[in-house]
Amino acid sequence: MKALIITIGDEILIGQIIDTNSTFISKELLKIGIEVSKIISIGDTKNEIISNLKYAQNNYDIVIITGGLGPTNDDITKEAFCEFFDDKLVHNPSILKHIEKIFEKFVDNPINDLNKSQAYLPSKAKLIPNRFGTAAGMKIQNQNTLFISLPGVPFEMKSMMREFLLPEIKKQFKCPILIHRTLITYGKGESFIAKKLINFEISLPSNFKFAYLPNYGRVRLRLSAKGSNKNLLEKEMDKLINELHRILGKLIVGYETLNPIEIEIGKKLTNLNLTLSVAESLTGGLISSRITSFPGSSKFFKGSVVAYNTSLKQNLLGVSKEDIQKYSVVSPEVSKAMSLGVKKLLNTDYSISTTGNAGPSKGDSNQALGKIFISLATPTDVNTYEYNFGTNRERNINKTVNKSLELLFKDLSKPN
Amino acid sequence: MKALIITIGDEILIGQIIDTNSTFISKELLKIGIEVSKIISIGDTKNEIISNLKYAQNNYDIVIITGGLGPTNDDITKEAFCEFFDDKLVHNPSILKHIEKIFEKFVDNPINDLNKSQAYLPSKAKLIPNRFGTAAGMKIQNQNTLFISLPGVPFEMKSMMREFLLPEIKKQFKCPILIHRTLITYGKGESFIAKKLINFEISLPSNFKFAYLPNYGRVRLRLSAKGSNKNLLEKEMDKLINELHRILGKLIVGYETLNPIEIEIGKKLTNLNLTLSVAESLTGGLISSRITSFPGSSKFFKGSVVAYNTSLKQNLLGVSKEDIQKYSVVSPEVSKAMSLGVKKLLNTDYSISTTGNAGPSKGDSNQALGKIFISLATPTDVNTYEYNFGTNRERNINKTVNKSLELLFKDLSKPN
Repeated sequence: MKALIITIGDEILIGQIIDTNSTFISKELLKIGIEVSKIISIGDTKNEIISNLKYAQNNYDIVIITGGLGPTNDDITKEAFCEFFDDKLVHNPSILKHIEKIFEKFVDNPINDLNKSQAYLPSKAKLIPNRFGTAAGMKIQNQNTLFISLPGVPFEMKSMMREFLLPEIKKQFKCPILIHRTLITYGKGESFIAKKLINFEISLPSNFKFAYLPNYGRVRLRLSAKGSNKNLLEKEMDKLINELHRILGKLIVGYETLNPIEIEIGKKLTNLNLTLSVAESLTGGLISSRITSFPGSSKFFKGSVVAYNTSLKQNLLGVSKEDIQKYSVVSPEVSKAMSLGVKKLLNTDYSISTTGNAGPSKGDSNQALGKIFISLATPTDVNTYEYNFGTNRERNINKTVNKSLELLFKDLSKPN
Repeated sequence: MKALIITIGDEILIGQIIDTNSTFISKELLKIGIEVSKIISIGDTKNEIISNLKYAQNNYDIVIITGGLGPTNDDITKEAFCEFFDDKLVHNPSILKHIEKIFEKFVDNPINDLNKSQAYLPSKAKLIPNRFGTAAGMKIQNQNTLFISLPGVPFEMKSMMREFLLPEIKKQFKCPILIHRTLITYGKGESFIAKKLINFEISLPSNFKFAYLPNYGRVRLRLSAKGSNKNLLEKEMDKLINELHRILGKLIVGYETLNPIEIEIGKKLTNLNLTLSVAESLTGGLISSRITSFPGSSKFFKGSVVAYNTSLKQNLLGVSKEDIQKYSVVSPEVSKAMSLGVKKLLNTDYSISTTGNAGPSKGDSNQALGKIFISLATPTDVNTYEYNFGTNRERNINKTVNKSLELLFKDLSKPN
């Protein structure tokens, strides 16, 4: 069972948009047991579309194509289909009725002949209805390959996948069971972990696959399994996950599919009825936005001060002018004062502060580029940690965010 | 001149991560005049990698590959290179030295043989240094195709592209000038606009290309041009853009900037020697982190208050208790008071505030889910805008961030 995704649109090739359609389709196909073997993005060029249809023919069981179904001149997927399948467009009255119905709502936007032209499909194609838009989808089974064409507008494509296609595909193809689990580790590099897992990897059953996903100070470990018996597979998976826990111990801080660390922190703080505030310098608001990206954060997160400018560290967070002059803004002393300052200002139980030189050039401090301090103030204590994550701005910021969340999570995970 | 991108990693094919590497590479290549013809994503499978190298060979002038260069078993790009190019791995002492240097900093994470194994390259490959990581890049010119292999970790790949590859590629290949402009229209569908532009499209010079990008009520219109004389191209482009303005009038609400809007805002504020602060409620720090993700932001960005909790809106931003009780925290009155409050507190020329119900459930307000207010305080004025972006938390937060930056950018773009 081989699946291919083709996303069409010059906007992908010039980097104007990120292709999230293929991510969605991959995920959804995986849920019904289909692994995507390849994703191809191409431009709005008829020859390019045709040559990729040709490549797909008989090499893949199923090909899902998005884009190029709109009413304007740059939309040429149907034309390309007609040429490749030696077909011609025929009028489909039920599509026209649907388009007319959509336009009834748009008083300012009366229907025109371009819209009406969307009511044509290649004669060999079967209609895939688009409840939310005027661009109908289509499918053609040709020799050993099922070709499916969907509009590129994400919410239209998504509803068509979920409502019409996935149930059909599941019925048509005999799909294996696929399961995936991802463990999150903090604090060690992938090579350190891999050394510990040499025997684990060697003795992995042949229907299991193991992968390392390093990312800004965390390494995610993904274990994938394929089989025909779900219960058996889940049991084997549980056993292997336990084995990973046994080998890696405290390095494992959570599961990806269950919850990101922000949610785990939120649960713990909410259960304990404790509150959090943040004083962010080099992280510029990213810790706060990570925390508030999940619903329910208002229960424990009071807010933060993004003290980018040195004067705010003094005026708002109460860091003493003397400390700043004596130690500079990037120092354990100022870091500590920031966390205590925001904790007092926002009246919370916990607080985190970050200060450092994110790069690429030094800020208001003569500390080395990449030198970073994180302070964690708890209800009873305050601790300051020093790091040097190098000279890359993006990495410095992201590693500091991850490290800060890790420090807080670890403290909250302490017995009593 | 044909360019291909190949991104390697099972995590892309199962939808675990979104492939943003290809977006970055496409954009950067475009800046030096190279249009990417195709993007391919494949899994960590040697045969799949080799068959795509074979496909690329002589079909493309340049192939940029990311991923599969790590120290663990699932990283097999070098192996695949050796098999495809009939080559073998040889030890590279300068890479080893670099890896050892990186590990000097990591006291908790001593170097091991897996890390040392990264110091091998195919004998035919030239090294592309990776300043920020242990995975060296490599390039091989084979027949008519230049193969470039980079690590998949985004910030490592990005710095290697910018520092080493783009200047080299620009030198090696004779690249045409490519320019793109994207106009944003609001309020009418793409077919309505296309009808108005029939003659415009017909009379478009052959080196220009026109595309419609509909997206949630906006239609972006992209005009692309290719040529050898930049001034001439820009002049022709200006003329056509004026023509579009003449035909579409008020439908056009703005331009999509080539740089992220944060950079454009930063440039304008820095040039004008003006400062910015932000008061974030539902956006939870994301506006601030977007702004500070770029170097140089400390020149104009003083900081922000993430006033997630209602009490902070009062105590820190000086929103009156009466206003909150009378109008609720999600109201134009509180929004305005927040922007004026943070502007005063942080003593800046501009300020932005956001407040609203992000969802999925209502917060401290009985306003509808998705109801959002943004206020923009300028040196002379303050304006409050009301939106309703629906019920999806992620979309509400991100649309509010984008809209806030757009409002600020528009104000800064006004004549005088």
